[in-house]
Amino acid sequence: MAGVVELTCELIRRVSVTPVDEGCQALLAQRLAHAGFTIEHLRYGDVDNLWATHGSGGPVLVFLGHTDVVPSGPFEDWTSNPFVPVVRDGHLYGRGAADMKGSVAAMTLALEAFVREWPAHAGTVALLLTSDEEGVAHDGVKRVVETFRTRGQRIDWCVVGEPSSLATLGDQIRIGRRGSLSGHLTVNGVQGHVAYPHKVKNPIHLAAPALAELAATRWDDGNDAFPPTSFQISNIRAGTGANNVVPGALHASFNFRFSTECTAQGLRERTEAIFARHGLDYDVVWELSGEPFLTRDGALRRATLTAIESVCGVAVDANTGGGTSDGRFVAPLGAEVVELGPVNATIHKVDECVNVDDLERLPLLYREIAERLLGANG
Amino acid sequence: MAGVVELTCELIRRVSVTPVDEGCQALLAQRLAHAGFTIEHLRYGDVDNLWATHGSGGPVLVFLGHTDVVPSGPFEDWTSNPFVPVVRDGHLYGRGAADMKGSVAAMTLALEAFVREWPAHAGTVALLLTSDEEGVAHDGVKRVVETFRTRGQRIDWCVVGEPSSLATLGDQIRIGRRGSLSGHLTVNGVQGHVAYPHKVKNPIHLAAPALAELAATRWDDGNDAFPPTSFQISNIRAGTGANNVVPGALHASFNFRFSTECTAQGLRERTEAIFARHGLDYDVVWELSGEPFLTRDGALRRATLTAIESVCGVAVDANTGGGTSDGRFVAPLGAEVVELGPVNATIHKVDECVNVDDLERLPLLYREIAERLLGANG
Repeated sequence: MAGVVELTCELIRRVSVTPVDEGCQALLAQRLAHAGFTIEHLRYGDVDNLWATHGSGGPVLVFLGHTDVVPSGPFEDWTSNPFVPVVRDGHLYGRGAADMKGSVAAMTLALEAFVREWPAHAGTVALLLTSDEEGVAHDGVKRVVETFRTRGQRIDWCVVGEPSSLATLGDQIRIGRRGSLSGHLTVNGVQGHVAYPHKVKNPIHLAAPALAELAATRWDDGNDAFPPTSFQISNIRAGTGANNVVPGALHASFNFRFSTECTAQGLRERTEAIFARHGLDYDVVWELSGEPFLTRDGALRRATLTAIESVCGVAVDANTGGGTSDGRFVAPLGAEVVELGPVNATIHKVDECVNVDDLERLPLLYREIAERLLGANG
Repeated sequence: MAGVVELTCELIRRVSVTPVDEGCQALLAQRLAHAGFTIEHLRYGDVDNLWATHGSGGPVLVFLGHTDVVPSGPFEDWTSNPFVPVVRDGHLYGRGAADMKGSVAAMTLALEAFVREWPAHAGTVALLLTSDEEGVAHDGVKRVVETFRTRGQRIDWCVVGEPSSLATLGDQIRIGRRGSLSGHLTVNGVQGHVAYPHKVKNPIHLAAPALAELAATRWDDGNDAFPPTSFQISNIRAGTGANNVVPGALHASFNFRFSTECTAQGLRERTEAIFARHGLDYDVVWELSGEPFLTRDGALRRATLTAIESVCGVAVDANTGGGTSDGRFVAPLGAEVVELGPVNATIHKVDECVNVDDLERLPLLYREIAERLLGANG
């Protein structure tokens, strides 16, 4: 589809390091308004969010993306300036080329083409963009979804433009994500001199068997869509630096990536039961990044697989691997969520790039998904 | 004995914060030379050591002390200037009053009096002082003892002037010390993202069961002179700070205080066997501060107890508690070692002080020990 490389380049030139949008959304809003979309800017704190809709009522198909990018690191580590897009050897280089300005450009062109061909399509087609997916992500899609809940805005289907592909466009899609639950643990002891062991309560000694039990626990066996729930202690620290002092407290952080066989509440209870069984004097602060979600066989998944077969002709691995995405905020609305975007090999790295052939087929993919779902007169 | 308070005050006025001697040893050497002692200054690195002897051949009785003090901390935290000695309410205040300039002054006066009364005493009586007991203690008594080994200098009996007493002079003496062995452990894993547990080896998870086993191990049951060997982990750290990264390595430090039922070599072997049984990829750097020693019933211990009964009239608790002292370096020469000094309640604290009555009896105590051991014509 003509113009996707050019539009991606225009977006890359805007140095929209998270949570800055740097005019990307205004540019796209202007195009979509021209194509007949209703535009709403939802700015929360420092974060820009764009909600562009066409049509009315259900079903509602949303293309979801972000205009922010991660920092480039030192320019000299790159072969060329990360904010001056350039095509070399069939790839477009620049920060955000793959994650995910290419997808955002492709979605915009796909939507323009779709409403041109189907001006009276069924239901609503929409583009939702945020400038804070790569950062703390509190005032991005999370806040927008809170607004949608109060408005009663439904979403039936959501295509997230995250770079899901492995070797070539469409060879891998994400049909769900594990949940992510973190805990920040403090184990209290009694500080003192190592020479007087009867006067101390060593929090490292107290915590070690409990942490060993947590590390050895099998939380579930996973299921057909998810690997088993995993537990990882990411940080631990205790001690004054001196070798003759027993510290008064131990601090540890840990994270669960959990399948639909567990719930955040259940994991919290099981973890605290282990702390209690080991007699710990402890505090734990819990932080839930997202419950797991899974898009089982349904209209969106079928439309996506058919579109990939038609446009890309590759076998698709539909799985729930990888990190988190803003899909975690949309899924709890009851939406089917699929993540489909270009190859993710270079994301967050120097010399981030996207294959130009893949990029040029991406608007066709998105457009065909929209046509299969809403491409009948409403 | 006249003059002990005055001499202690002269020493307190010298700001001999470890490892600085600030002329303390020169002052005492001058007095002892005048009393007929042979003086040798052994300076190693920044550290002054004094070796003053009277008589010749064996048996050899050494009084051991240090002229350095720990820092005072902010002067304003003290009731009066820590380096301007003052008597208030029956106590002499100043940094080093109890640890251990009072003992050093008392030893000097005791030796002067002893050789005046017994000019042709049996064997050798000596004073050994260092200016690095409170610091790293590498160039102090440790180095002096190395020199003694090469010279063939024997020591039969050693009275260490460390403040051993609990409530009143002589109510507690130390007849040995636990050994101290430290280990600095690194457990190697494989760093990675928490979302990809199959790609990481979490060193916290690997170490936890081994540390739990170490903490739960009973190393020995102690004996009549020593409490059971204790193990304490003093420091632990792992993690990048980020909650989504599994760290590549864990670092921990630990310390054994061990009885004569264990050896440093045995503890090292048992510890490493636990690491190996848990399959750890690890490095450990060992640091032996001192093997344990114990002065069983013998001439020095009997002379000390008799002198305390005669001068102080209190019941004596002879034990092996407390931290380490320079006695650990002398004991391996085959010497009987006893630690006897004033009340230790205020040492290393603000408003350090020594009871004036106790201080005035201390030279009598030391002199009586010398008389009971060497007070016959040689």
